[in-house]
Amino acid sequence: MPTEPRPVSPSRLLFAARVREERQARGWTQEDLGERCDLSWNYVGQVERGTRNISVDNMDAIAQALEMRLADLLLPNPY
Amino acid sequence: MPTEPRPVSPSRLLFAARVREERQARGWTQEDLGERCDLSWNYVGQVERGTRNISVDNMDAIAQALEMRLADLLLPNPY
Repeated sequence: MPTEPRPVSPSRLLFAARVREERQARGWTQEDLGERCDLSWNYVGQVERGTRNISVDNMDAIAQALEMRLADLLLPNPY
Repeated sequence: MPTEPRPVSPSRLLFAARVREERQARGWTQEDLGERCDLSWNYVGQVERGTRNISVDNMDAIAQALEMRLADLLLPNPY
């Protein structure tokens, strides 16, 4: 019997919300962010909606584009 | 012309090292850790060597197995 697929993780949803928040705080569109990390606006949209099980290398690229530590995109906004 | 593949990210290597460190601190084998998060020992080994571009959901599962926040597996060991 195959293993059940995992449900969407809390970390995926937290990352989704934090990326949206930090992108909007900079006044960037999804396309602006995507261009800065070589991802499509469509991919960025999926990440922000939590429909993409994004990999660590792409998370790192997004964090670098936002000039943040990846860890800080996996913690609630402190403000 | 296709985009170059991304190089292995700093976050991937940091996560790899931190998982190994925290697993060993608990005296667990790779198989022990794998069993606690429904991943194979082989997969855990690849993650710890940085040869797997692991997804956020699997990173979350490993953090839960270690009873840690994922963010703390993406920061250097504070001790």
